[in-house]
Amino acid sequence: MANITKKVSWSSRGDESGGGERTPLLNGSEEVRYTRQLSGEGGMFHIGRLSTVDLEEDMTSDEDSVRGCPKEIPHNEKLLSLKYESLDYDNSENQLFLEEERRMSFLGFKCLEISRWVICGLIGFLTGLIACCIDIAVENLAGVKYYVVKQNIEKFTEVGGLSISLILWAVLNSAFVMVGAVIVAFFEPGAAGSGIPQIKCYLNGVKIPRVVRLKTLVVKVCGVICSVAGGLAVGKEGPMIHSGAVVAAGVSQGRSTSLKKDFKIFEYFRRDTEKRDFVSAGAAAGVSAAFGAPVGGVLFSLEEGASFWNQMLTWRIFFASMISTFTLNFFLSIYNNKPGDLSSPGLINFGRFESDSVAYNLYEIPLFIVMGAAGGLLGALFNILNYWLTIFRIRYVHRPCLQVMEAMLVAAVTATVSFAMIYFSNDCQPLGPDQSEDYPLQLFCADGEYNSMATAFFNTPERSVRSLFHNPPGSYNPLTLSLFTLTYFFLACWTYGLTVSAGVFIPSLLIGAAWGRLFGILLAAITPNGSVWAVPGKYALMGAAAQLGGIVRMTLSLTVIMVEATGNVTYGLPIMLVLLTAKIVGDYFVEGLYDIHIKLQSVPFLHLEAPATSHWLTAREVMGAPVTCFNRIEKVGTIVDVLSNTSTNHNGFPVVVPVAASDDLGKICGLILRSQLIVLLKHKVFVELARSRLTQRKLQLKDFRDAYPRFPPIQSIHVSQDERECMMDLTEFMNPTPYTVPQETSLPRVFKLFRALGLRHLVVVDSENRVVGLVTRKDLARYHLGKHGLEEMQLAQT
Amino acid sequence: MANITKKVSWSSRGDESGGGERTPLLNGSEEVRYTRQLSGEGGMFHIGRLSTVDLEEDMTSDEDSVRGCPKEIPHNEKLLSLKYESLDYDNSENQLFLEEERRMSFLGFKCLEISRWVICGLIGFLTGLIACCIDIAVENLAGVKYYVVKQNIEKFTEVGGLSISLILWAVLNSAFVMVGAVIVAFFEPGAAGSGIPQIKCYLNGVKIPRVVRLKTLVVKVCGVICSVAGGLAVGKEGPMIHSGAVVAAGVSQGRSTSLKKDFKIFEYFRRDTEKRDFVSAGAAAGVSAAFGAPVGGVLFSLEEGASFWNQMLTWRIFFASMISTFTLNFFLSIYNNKPGDLSSPGLINFGRFESDSVAYNLYEIPLFIVMGAAGGLLGALFNILNYWLTIFRIRYVHRPCLQVMEAMLVAAVTATVSFAMIYFSNDCQPLGPDQSEDYPLQLFCADGEYNSMATAFFNTPERSVRSLFHNPPGSYNPLTLSLFTLTYFFLACWTYGLTVSAGVFIPSLLIGAAWGRLFGILLAAITPNGSVWAVPGKYALMGAAAQLGGIVRMTLSLTVIMVEATGNVTYGLPIMLVLLTAKIVGDYFVEGLYDIHIKLQSVPFLHLEAPATSHWLTAREVMGAPVTCFNRIEKVGTIVDVLSNTSTNHNGFPVVVPVAASDDLGKICGLILRSQLIVLLKHKVFVELARSRLTQRKLQLKDFRDAYPRFPPIQSIHVSQDERECMMDLTEFMNPTPYTVPQETSLPRVFKLFRALGLRHLVVVDSENRVVGLVTRKDLARYHLGKHGLEEMQLAQT
Repeated sequence: MANITKKVSWSSRGDESGGGERTPLLNGSEEVRYTRQLSGEGGMFHIGRLSTVDLEEDMTSDEDSVRGCPKEIPHNEKLLSLKYESLDYDNSENQLFLEEERRMSFLGFKCLEISRWVICGLIGFLTGLIACCIDIAVENLAGVKYYVVKQNIEKFTEVGGLSISLILWAVLNSAFVMVGAVIVAFFEPGAAGSGIPQIKCYLNGVKIPRVVRLKTLVVKVCGVICSVAGGLAVGKEGPMIHSGAVVAAGVSQGRSTSLKKDFKIFEYFRRDTEKRDFVSAGAAAGVSAAFGAPVGGVLFSLEEGASFWNQMLTWRIFFASMISTFTLNFFLSIYNNKPGDLSSPGLINFGRFESDSVAYNLYEIPLFIVMGAAGGLLGALFNILNYWLTIFRIRYVHRPCLQVMEAMLVAAVTATVSFAMIYFSNDCQPLGPDQSEDYPLQLFCADGEYNSMATAFFNTPERSVRSLFHNPPGSYNPLTLSLFTLTYFFLACWTYGLTVSAGVFIPSLLIGAAWGRLFGILLAAITPNGSVWAVPGKYALMGAAAQLGGIVRMTLSLTVIMVEATGNVTYGLPIMLVLLTAKIVGDYFVEGLYDIHIKLQSVPFLHLEAPATSHWLTAREVMGAPVTCFNRIEKVGTIVDVLSNTSTNHNGFPVVVPVAASDDLGKICGLILRSQLIVLLKHKVFVELARSRLTQRKLQLKDFRDAYPRFPPIQSIHVSQDERECMMDLTEFMNPTPYTVPQETSLPRVFKLFRALGLRHLVVVDSENRVVGLVTRKDLARYHLGKHGLEEMQLAQT
Repeated sequence: MANITKKVSWSSRGDESGGGERTPLLNGSEEVRYTRQLSGEGGMFHIGRLSTVDLEEDMTSDEDSVRGCPKEIPHNEKLLSLKYESLDYDNSENQLFLEEERRMSFLGFKCLEISRWVICGLIGFLTGLIACCIDIAVENLAGVKYYVVKQNIEKFTEVGGLSISLILWAVLNSAFVMVGAVIVAFFEPGAAGSGIPQIKCYLNGVKIPRVVRLKTLVVKVCGVICSVAGGLAVGKEGPMIHSGAVVAAGVSQGRSTSLKKDFKIFEYFRRDTEKRDFVSAGAAAGVSAAFGAPVGGVLFSLEEGASFWNQMLTWRIFFASMISTFTLNFFLSIYNNKPGDLSSPGLINFGRFESDSVAYNLYEIPLFIVMGAAGGLLGALFNILNYWLTIFRIRYVHRPCLQVMEAMLVAAVTATVSFAMIYFSNDCQPLGPDQSEDYPLQLFCADGEYNSMATAFFNTPERSVRSLFHNPPGSYNPLTLSLFTLTYFFLACWTYGLTVSAGVFIPSLLIGAAWGRLFGILLAAITPNGSVWAVPGKYALMGAAAQLGGIVRMTLSLTVIMVEATGNVTYGLPIMLVLLTAKIVGDYFVEGLYDIHIKLQSVPFLHLEAPATSHWLTAREVMGAPVTCFNRIEKVGTIVDVLSNTSTNHNGFPVVVPVAASDDLGKICGLILRSQLIVLLKHKVFVELARSRLTQRKLQLKDFRDAYPRFPPIQSIHVSQDERECMMDLTEFMNPTPYTVPQETSLPRVFKLFRALGLRHLVVVDSENRVVGLVTRKDLARYHLGKHGLEEMQLAQT
């Protein structure tokens, strides 16, 4: 596959000043230099001393924008973008920090701990509230829409001219979707999709630009309301996870940079370490609100951010999840005029599976496993199709207006296909006495009957899922279900990846529920007294689990989410089996949907372990070298020059003590970050000035926190020619005890240390403690297992 | 509290040759030297260079047994025993290992991965099978016992002379318990109790002697059958966790050292790293079999072993849990003549809570929280009482025969008290048409009625719990419940810590269910139309959760376990709230029961984080120094002498290169373990011999694996005087890249590295990479937060 480039959909468009209109097509392969192919045979190879360090020295020549705001990204899963930075999850334990910690009393730590709980409570509350708003807005908008269309259809069924109804439906859908797509495409492209891949990356330790901004949240919430109300084959559950994460990032900082409002609280938490912990709580709260699954939410955060785990944190996350589902439940109960009845814990409610009807037999286990395998296969097909579609979109549908048009097209096509299916279906079912259908369409059915196909298509996806699970046997005929499965599969596949905020959970469940129910019906038909045990609703549930598992490939968390959403643990074991089978089968063909999209964005995602066959690589081969180091007392001019060098764009600098005049390698004595140096330069913490102005306020940790997280670029800091000759003493500000490894350390060992502690920079030293290299995320994420053993990805700027 | 000593109940008695009869009372305080008190004010203090290194130089003088088999342990929670070693969770990546890994193909790693899954499947299967055996044995034994006693009571109710029934009951109970206590006290003291504290320690990384031996398993299984059948206030669930862990440790090694049988399979897994991972799967499988809670099992392993987490491992653990509950379910369904009906997923089954009756209202939430607080208080009371009782036992009940007698006494008292309660109770209830009672005792009730008190006392605890949850309102009168709560509370408290295998889960649930039901009844009585919503069964469940949470203080895993055991997620949120409240309230007073027992054993248990106020301590103050180091090429005599030195008894030795003749500190170049040196000495891998006998087989990793885990003591290795002059080249066998930290590193940072990677030795170096100290588990576990800030525990040999 050729290297292709596209507009960056995950991140901002920089200054957004018409940048969207430039021709974005560059041949990505030109951007890639230093192609390194490993032989994969375990033999010797010369990797040289290449890394982020000496790459892209002429980048400025073809890109005159400020650094950090690249416009293009090569979309090839064999590339690794240099654009993404890591989070500073490792505390910089410099003197300022240690002094603060040592000054703090035991009571101070207790207060901090209590604030953490308070923040988690707030996160849960706000996330639940947002979920509640989304739910009510969608219900009302969709209700009005279906009411209008239903009236129209009923009117024209008798007089003829149903094409007018079709046009009305398509136009209504397109209008909703247009609003949703416009705000996403033009205002905040980062709000597109479900946001789960972005949150996965964030929890993995990658700083995805703008992913936790307030603007993203607003656009996401409005976008998801529009796209669900617009009748797309999407769910509102995925975006909740992203919303929860944004809420967490906002609340925990006690200020909003977008709104320029600082509440002067929670200042202690203004660093990546703490923020990331809160974001994992927010993601969990989001899952919890979406599915009414607080434990599932905790497990989701755990599966995605497992490396930096901690028990106190688990409990706080659990608390946030709990509050979130409770808040949603409480407000929905008030909205539904049943205050105090806590029966709708999540956005999606699978409805009650009664204990009597849910029993399963031993001989059904193989059937479930077969369904799991089918789900894995169909999921893999879905993912492959969506992969090709995404490639196509990257190539040809990159301008915002094109993206909006595509979204509207999909909306119109969805309406048309639905209408056609309903129109040509002759599956009439008697209207039950309990009126379980919300919008029963009579169409050409006899009086007292309704069109069964319309139950599936003329409904929000959540309600369709519930109908498939719970409608009594015989509510659907097999032809209806097969047609529905087929069309919805392709619609959902086409829809995922549109420039709208929307999730893939519900469409997956719906597809699976449809073919699962079909499976159950066929089973009941072909087996003797099968109709006794082959309850279609049960098989619909298993099918839904299989399909969802086949697409997203989560195991433990998804099992718990499904169990919590069904409200009954009897199905725990079969759901587990189904999900595990779906994962194993699906993984044989292609990765999970989220991983595909992460790879297509060339994000340096660190998996859980180094590739198995990488023991023959050592830190020496992996690291970047030579390393730009600073002296303990360094000239301001040197620092400014290094920081201004857009060709290297380093973020961490070892601080060294020279060993001997002849030796160009210094002995490690600390590590300092770009952000810290920027703050130092901004506050002009120069040795000379300190001497002359003794009264000058000493730089405090607060100054660093105030600048976090949007440290100004070096260009915005003015340093005069005189000041360039001054010296800066880094001793107090550098991290004096960075983690180091000897250069003989094997890659898995380096990887383990890096991943377990969530590092951003790992200094490689020789036996004399001299700095010989620096390992960063990209150096590790580069290696992955391909079909023929270990493969190395290419690094590419932007 | 004085320092007290006792027989080690957690570990072996060494050679068991009458060791049990020696006077074990030593004043522990004599053993403690180098008492170090921190001022706790943050000021300077001189800790000196003390650690395991120069302690106990005269230990041999008062103990002539071989080293590694100490007889006594000071039981004071302010002490830290030096007896316990750490697991080698960090791989020693020496040349042999790296060569093997590099030789291995991609396919080889796949096969390894598949074997891991197979092993996990086996672990689950065997654990489920064991659970099944225990369940069937207990049911039958207890059934026979209750039948006999019931017949007897019925006989004597009419003719008078019920004291004979009492005696019969007491004697039967005592007989069962005697058998159980004898095998535990005389054959394998490590099988006493629930085993959960031991497994917690093991997963934490502490090598508890004999905890995962086959003999322990056998004694545990037989012991638990006897103690439950003997009518003690115990459950059979806790021991399942221990059993699962033993099964895992056995199966994963592909051999049994006890049975001297080596299947020559799974040799790759013969090291602590892999073994510990499997043990966590076994523990999860145990939880899963005990409660029918596979997800709860995974979370239990996670809560206890969270620091070394890994996603692939999670899935395997999940798989083991799944198989375990499924196996149990399958075999029990066959036993119950309902093959294929998978409705008993665990040993304890809370029965079905029907969805309709389980709804709760918003205004019940505060009630649940109050119940949680009550559970926390009662749990704290339970723990404090048990703590004092344990201290008493440590002081006075240390001989096996005394222990057996105490167990028999408790059994007799339990029977007597139960009998008295039943006898004096006049709570007669009509026998329902469904005959839900298994052994309804009519006693003095009218015909067609049964004694309600007997439902609680004349039954296995599991059945009593179920009755309290599900019997219709009015089955118990409040007086019955309050008396039962009161007596059972003290009985359970007295029972926990006896020298029998038994768990505390079920008694806790039972106490809680009793007072919870009482609470529900009172609530229904005092509130208007309270009888509509205050279903006693619901409050019984909440009370059970509160009481259990108050005693063991698990949160996340316990919530999931309870939810899975009730089979209904509706109660998820209230159970969470109850458990969280119970934990917060209980933690205010005293630690959890398991933590108390761990502390009383002076185990160097590493908590999740360093104490908050420990930032002013650095590696320099914490580490042990001076360190015994070896040269790369070392004289055999030196090595033998160092290893034979019982006063130091080190396990890890940095390998150094001398810097200058004048300098006694060498530069680090590796780390070698005692076990590795022992194998080298045993195989006489001397430089001189290698030269003379070129054909000699090269030492392989297999030789180390064969010796694992019971490496012979140094005393058993004969080294002649000539050989003492030979040299050993350690280069190939040492770990060339041990983790190191500079001496300025703060304690929390050291702690984080140590805990995240599960280290055993962490080398402290100066800026020249010279070895200045060594940090081990004890150096870190020593610091804890007391009432007045940071406190330091004393180290004590044995």
